[in-house]
Amino acid sequence: MTSPAAGPTKILLPESRIPRQWYNVLADLPTPPPPPLHPATREPVGPEDLAPLFPMDLIAQEVSTERYIDIPDDVIDVYRLWRPTPLIRAHRLERALRTPARIYYKYEGVSPVGSHKPNTAVPQAYYNAVQGIRRLTTETGAGQWGSALAFACAQFGLDCEIWMVRASYDQKPYRRSMMEAYGARVHASPSEVTSAGSKIRAADPASTGSLGIAISEAVEVAGGADDTRYALGSGLSHVLMHQTVIGQEALEQLAMVEETPDLIVGCTGGGSNFAGLFLPFLREKLAGRIDPVIRAVEPTACPSLTRGHYAYDFGDTAGFTPLLKMHTLGHDFVPDPIHAGGLRYHGMAPLLSHLYDEGVFDAVAKPQRECFDAGVLFARTEGIMPAPEPTHALAAAIEEARRCAETGEPKVILTALCGHGHFDMAAYDRYLSGQMDDLELSQERIDTALTRLP
Amino acid sequence: MTSPAAGPTKILLPESRIPRQWYNVLADLPTPPPPPLHPATREPVGPEDLAPLFPMDLIAQEVSTERYIDIPDDVIDVYRLWRPTPLIRAHRLERALRTPARIYYKYEGVSPVGSHKPNTAVPQAYYNAVQGIRRLTTETGAGQWGSALAFACAQFGLDCEIWMVRASYDQKPYRRSMMEAYGARVHASPSEVTSAGSKIRAADPASTGSLGIAISEAVEVAGGADDTRYALGSGLSHVLMHQTVIGQEALEQLAMVEETPDLIVGCTGGGSNFAGLFLPFLREKLAGRIDPVIRAVEPTACPSLTRGHYAYDFGDTAGFTPLLKMHTLGHDFVPDPIHAGGLRYHGMAPLLSHLYDEGVFDAVAKPQRECFDAGVLFARTEGIMPAPEPTHALAAAIEEARRCAETGEPKVILTALCGHGHFDMAAYDRYLSGQMDDLELSQERIDTALTRLP
Repeated sequence: MTSPAAGPTKILLPESRIPRQWYNVLADLPTPPPPPLHPATREPVGPEDLAPLFPMDLIAQEVSTERYIDIPDDVIDVYRLWRPTPLIRAHRLERALRTPARIYYKYEGVSPVGSHKPNTAVPQAYYNAVQGIRRLTTETGAGQWGSALAFACAQFGLDCEIWMVRASYDQKPYRRSMMEAYGARVHASPSEVTSAGSKIRAADPASTGSLGIAISEAVEVAGGADDTRYALGSGLSHVLMHQTVIGQEALEQLAMVEETPDLIVGCTGGGSNFAGLFLPFLREKLAGRIDPVIRAVEPTACPSLTRGHYAYDFGDTAGFTPLLKMHTLGHDFVPDPIHAGGLRYHGMAPLLSHLYDEGVFDAVAKPQRECFDAGVLFARTEGIMPAPEPTHALAAAIEEARRCAETGEPKVILTALCGHGHFDMAAYDRYLSGQMDDLELSQERIDTALTRLP
Repeated sequence: MTSPAAGPTKILLPESRIPRQWYNVLADLPTPPPPPLHPATREPVGPEDLAPLFPMDLIAQEVSTERYIDIPDDVIDVYRLWRPTPLIRAHRLERALRTPARIYYKYEGVSPVGSHKPNTAVPQAYYNAVQGIRRLTTETGAGQWGSALAFACAQFGLDCEIWMVRASYDQKPYRRSMMEAYGARVHASPSEVTSAGSKIRAADPASTGSLGIAISEAVEVAGGADDTRYALGSGLSHVLMHQTVIGQEALEQLAMVEETPDLIVGCTGGGSNFAGLFLPFLREKLAGRIDPVIRAVEPTACPSLTRGHYAYDFGDTAGFTPLLKMHTLGHDFVPDPIHAGGLRYHGMAPLLSHLYDEGVFDAVAKPQRECFDAGVLFARTEGIMPAPEPTHALAAAIEEARRCAETGEPKVILTALCGHGHFDMAAYDRYLSGQMDDLELSQERIDTALTRLP
């Protein structure tokens, strides 16, 4: 028996402290990120180009330079189902590491779908509903984002139609069942219901699909119907802004225990979870009140920040989207099938890419076995089984805590546990049975993908 | 858009309000439940009969008549990872039902394994650890209890060995992976590592196992080694007592919003979740301070309270346990394969059976499609996907709320949402695709099973 830890484990905020505004970092940046460009003209894309896909309120948020944007009461009313989320001191993990560091994690797995994704799915559904839109379309890989949007649509009485990558649709039926339980209609992509999908199936009847194909299908259906719009789970600035509820709460929770972070670390796929955590702290850093190191952690199998180029590229594989200035591995780079499906994206959000280019945060890449080492240690000490994505952040947090054990520094480490792993036990099974590979990525593959930048 | 609900959604307690004591209802009962009997002598079983299987502290708790038993600091230190759990007002469900009733649910799915089971797994592991025991054994069906015990053993450095019904081991690998991620060793039952299992495999190499067989294996190993004991997830009085943290918190949370329950409703398999919720309220009722109706909900496929006999019977199928006076369908009754695996047990906890016999609570049985109707309505309104077990309680709560919509009564309904359904999406899939059956149970099958009561 060890003696019980001093100080609280969970730092909780009352419901009344759900943030009433999102924080828009664009207001505080000396230079804005480069704008999206039309692929044909290479001119900046205007609101009218985006109107067939997004409601006007979200288009306005995408380019707003207001520092704070009010969260509608109806959105807060849904956030109340799980927000504020707990900030948890990892006492038991610290003890196992014999570290003087103090580790805190902001736990987003308490949401109904088990991840941070509803933070943006709910306002996206709301703004579409108030504009009179009847139906939202989207794509999903393993189903994390799709289930969040299906939940959000159920809350606002919207139909929800989701194109799910066929390989996942066939092999991972449980998130599909979840979307359907929320009332969404789920298509295996490529499907016969779009011309994009039909063409691909005609050429290759056995196609197992890709996120890029699924995006094309969802966008085609949204663009072709007046009562339908498209929603996406990461990448754009308004999506990142919606996630700032995470960091705003964490800032207040750390203040409650009189702590200031020395390191803020999060995992990055498109970047929305990481941005949601650190942007409110960046505001404080820019104002000179705190000075944390901020660190992104990406998989070595998909290292857009650490090994990509900062260049204009397409957001999707097929090249249908505007050109976005971002850290990219090339729009037709297909990452190896690591288990952190949410981190398998060729590019980084343009806003984050700009901040990385300005040196606001650093980045490291981690191989997946080191991440699962961290995930299992975390589960056995803290109890929560992390999703594969946040094990990347945990691996980097643990690395820093071990460093502190050597140096004796009592650093305060803040990380985001963006989701639980109850839908990802097959990945743990592979890890525990010794069948997991680190999937090394050759420079040649990256170089080849980068030659096809537009 | 509807207007946001008045009043809070989540009623939260600070960590300092985790109960410091379990409530032992035996102190407040006019008559105690009939004692367990030795099958050969039909004499009451003594502590010495139980010592090979349980540590002395738990044996003492099983027969204690102290009203309150202190929760050790080391147990509270683990409870802090998720307790106190939220009490949630189901505003959005109420609106969908257009009911004047106010519905509250105590949500235990925030625990690391997603259910109420760790409330007892943690103290069971603790008391074994302080007695110097090195290893715990147990059985598990679909894995809910096994994963809770594996988590608890990881917290106290105990080895954990689990016999999992082979049908589930083969078909539902994800909870097995979870147990292994926590460090437990999981055997498909019947296994070759026990003589009980070996005999069954010799007679029937294709045996897919049963909970009764798995119990026999776990008990055999625990009984045969000095450093090993056995743990169980429901049924015994100390297990029910550990769960009273649920109701004690709920009592305080309802008081915070100045509410008194008119109906308390929970699902019953062995009965530990239901007992954990209502026993602290029963204390208040016995003292004349409140007067709620208390209602158990069981599946029509396994109706021990509503259609069983109140008689002495074995706790396991093979007849190795002491005789327990309980509402039973007969120890060799095999319930049809409903999806609420946690409610597929032939008997009811002896303590609850005694209280039911005394008229302390009433009971209803629900067919599984009505329960999944309730589960899907709940998911689409409240967001949380309930496990199949608590959909039984939700179905009865919704029934009462609809009655209130007719009569205009603003009743306060309290229920326990004992776990999330993220491991049970296959069941929702069957329901949504129209393949779910209500599995009617004939009187003849019950009569036949009851003829074999000892």
